[in-house]
Amino acid sequence: MTSLPITPADVRAAAALLHGIAVRTPTIPLPGDPSVIVKAENMQRTGSFKFRGAYHAAASLPADIRQRGIVGASSGNHAQALALAGRLLAVPATVVIPADAPCAKAEGALALGARLVTYDRASGDRDALVAKIAAEQGAAIIPSANSPQVMAGAGTAALELLTDHPEITTLVVPVGGGGLAAGSAVIAWELRPGIKVIGVEPATAADTLASLRAGHRVTLPSVPSTVADGLGHTTPSELPWRVNSRLLTDIVTVTDREITSAMEYAFRHLKMVAEPSGAVALAAVLARDLATDGGTVGVVLSGGGVDLPVFHDLTGNRTRRETARA
Amino acid sequence: MTSLPITPADVRAAAALLHGIAVRTPTIPLPGDPSVIVKAENMQRTGSFKFRGAYHAAASLPADIRQRGIVGASSGNHAQALALAGRLLAVPATVVIPADAPCAKAEGALALGARLVTYDRASGDRDALVAKIAAEQGAAIIPSANSPQVMAGAGTAALELLTDHPEITTLVVPVGGGGLAAGSAVIAWELRPGIKVIGVEPATAADTLASLRAGHRVTLPSVPSTVADGLGHTTPSELPWRVNSRLLTDIVTVTDREITSAMEYAFRHLKMVAEPSGAVALAAVLARDLATDGGTVGVVLSGGGVDLPVFHDLTGNRTRRETARA
Repeated sequence: MTSLPITPADVRAAAALLHGIAVRTPTIPLPGDPSVIVKAENMQRTGSFKFRGAYHAAASLPADIRQRGIVGASSGNHAQALALAGRLLAVPATVVIPADAPCAKAEGALALGARLVTYDRASGDRDALVAKIAAEQGAAIIPSANSPQVMAGAGTAALELLTDHPEITTLVVPVGGGGLAAGSAVIAWELRPGIKVIGVEPATAADTLASLRAGHRVTLPSVPSTVADGLGHTTPSELPWRVNSRLLTDIVTVTDREITSAMEYAFRHLKMVAEPSGAVALAAVLARDLATDGGTVGVVLSGGGVDLPVFHDLTGNRTRRETARA
Repeated sequence: MTSLPITPADVRAAAALLHGIAVRTPTIPLPGDPSVIVKAENMQRTGSFKFRGAYHAAASLPADIRQRGIVGASSGNHAQALALAGRLLAVPATVVIPADAPCAKAEGALALGARLVTYDRASGDRDALVAKIAAEQGAAIIPSANSPQVMAGAGTAALELLTDHPEITTLVVPVGGGGLAAGSAVIAWELRPGIKVIGVEPATAADTLASLRAGHRVTLPSVPSTVADGLGHTTPSELPWRVNSRLLTDIVTVTDREITSAMEYAFRHLKMVAEPSGAVALAAVLARDLATDGGTVGVVLSGGGVDLPVFHDLTGNRTRRETARA
C-alpha cells in the first residue's frame, strides 16, 4: 500500500501558516437539532473554503518561483481564492474560468486584481490553457484540488471543526475535485480514528461514487448538468482520489431539488447564504439519516458564492407556490 | 440628574446568566474594509438579538411568578424570543403580534410552542391586550424594550463585540423601542469612556431623533411606513429613552433604499441574511461616513428574520434591472 499524498502533519502545518490569514469560521448548531454542527466556510475570505488551499499553496512556493505569478483553473471559487492569495502575496494571479461561471465569482476575482481568461466549459481544454499560460509567464500552476498543498490547506477547515467539537463522530463534506474531502479525511482520521467521513456529490455528477464502485477512477461520459456549478466534475482528481478511495466511509448523492431546499433551509434557519455547491453536504444531512450511530454530525457548508438573481430563481418559484398554497 | 435605569453591572450580570444559553455570535470584518466589524446577531437563537433580553428577563423573574407564564407584544422577533425563553424555562409564553407580521416570525413563535394573539397594527391597542392577557393568566409581562432586564440582556451583544474588538471607537446600533441602543450605550461607556454610540432609525420612523431634537419624548402623528417592520415605532420607549437621551452621541437615519442595499451587501459580501430592521445600522455605515475619527466601527446586524418571498421582492427587482444593464 503506497503512502497517502498528504499527512495529518501537512494539515497542521497549513493551519499554522494560515493562522491570522484565513478566517477561523464559526461553527453553528442547527436550531432545533444540536446534534448537527455546521462549519460556515461561506464566511471564509472570498466566500468559500478554497482560500485556505490556494493561499497555502501560493505561500508555500519558493519566493523566486512565486514572484513570477500563479495561475489556475476554476469554476469560480478557486479563482477568487487565487486572486486574493495573489494580492496578499503581491504576485500576479491569472485564473482560467468557464465563460458561464457565476458573475459574482468572476467579478470577485477581477475586483481582487486577477487576470481572467475564459474558456468554453463544454469544448475547451482548460488544463492545456493553464499549461500554456504557465509556460508563457513562468507562473506556477495552483490546481483547485490536485495538489498536496491545496488539499492540506482545505483540510484545515475540518481540523478547526473537529477541534471545536470533539463530540463529532460523522463528518460530511462536498466532493468536487475531491481536495476538501481528502484534506478533511486525513486530519479527521488522525484526530478521531474510526470517524465516518461521508462525501456528498450531486446525483448527476457522482464521478467519485462511480469510481469507488469501479475500484478505479472512471470518467463520466459528458459534462454533468447540475445546479452545483462547482461540482460538475467528470472524474476525480488524481491526488485526492488516492486519499478518498481509502479514507472515505461512503459517498451519498443529492438531487438538485434537495440542494435548493438546503439553500432555503440555510436562509431561513441559519440566516446564511449557501451556494448550490456549498449546500450539498447540508442537503445530505437534511435529506438522509447520516448519524446512524446516534452521534454528532459535522457538516461543511463550503461556500456562499451565488448571484442574487440565481438565488431568486433557485429559491423563488417553489416558495411562491408554497406561499400560494398556504 | 437622576440615575440611569440600568448600570454596566446589570449588563455584566445578564451576560453571566446568558453564558452557554445565548450564542456568542461571530464578529466579522467587512471584506475589503477591516475597519468595520459586524456583530452577527442574525445568528443569535431565534434569529435576532431579542433572545438575549427576553430570556434574561424571564429567567430573572421569581420562580413562583414565572411559572404562571410570560406574555409580551412584538412585531415578530421578540415574539420568537419569548417563545424560546418560555420553552427553555418550561413556562407558557403568549405573544401579541400584529396581523401583518412576517410569516417567518409568527411561524417561528408558533413552532416554539407559544400562543399567538394577533391585533391590527393601525387600530389595535396592543398594550391593553397584553395587560388583559396578563391579568387573566397571572402572567408576567416582558416588554420588547421597556424593561431594565430586557435592556441589560440586549446590551450583552455590545459587551461581546467591544470585548472581542478593543479597537472599536464608534458603535452603531439600530433604534426601535431603544432597548438595544440603551443596553449597548451603558456598557459601551463603561468599557470605553468617550466612545461614540450612534443610533440608526428609518427616515420615516425617526421618533427617537425627533425626541432628541425636541428634548423630550415626542410621538409621531401616525404609524410609520418603513420596510423595517421591527422599527416602526411612533415614540421611544420610556426606560430606554432615559438612557438614550443622555448616552447616544447621535442618531442618523436611512432610507428604505439604503436598507435594502445593505441587505444585498450582506447577501453578496457577508454571505448573511439580514432582515430590513436588522440591516439599518449596516446601511448607515455603508451610506454615511461614521468613522470620522479614523477609528474602527462596530455595527450590530441585529436580525435575520425575513421571509424568502419578501427578500426576493426587496432585493430582486433592482438586481434584475442592474443585470439587464450590465
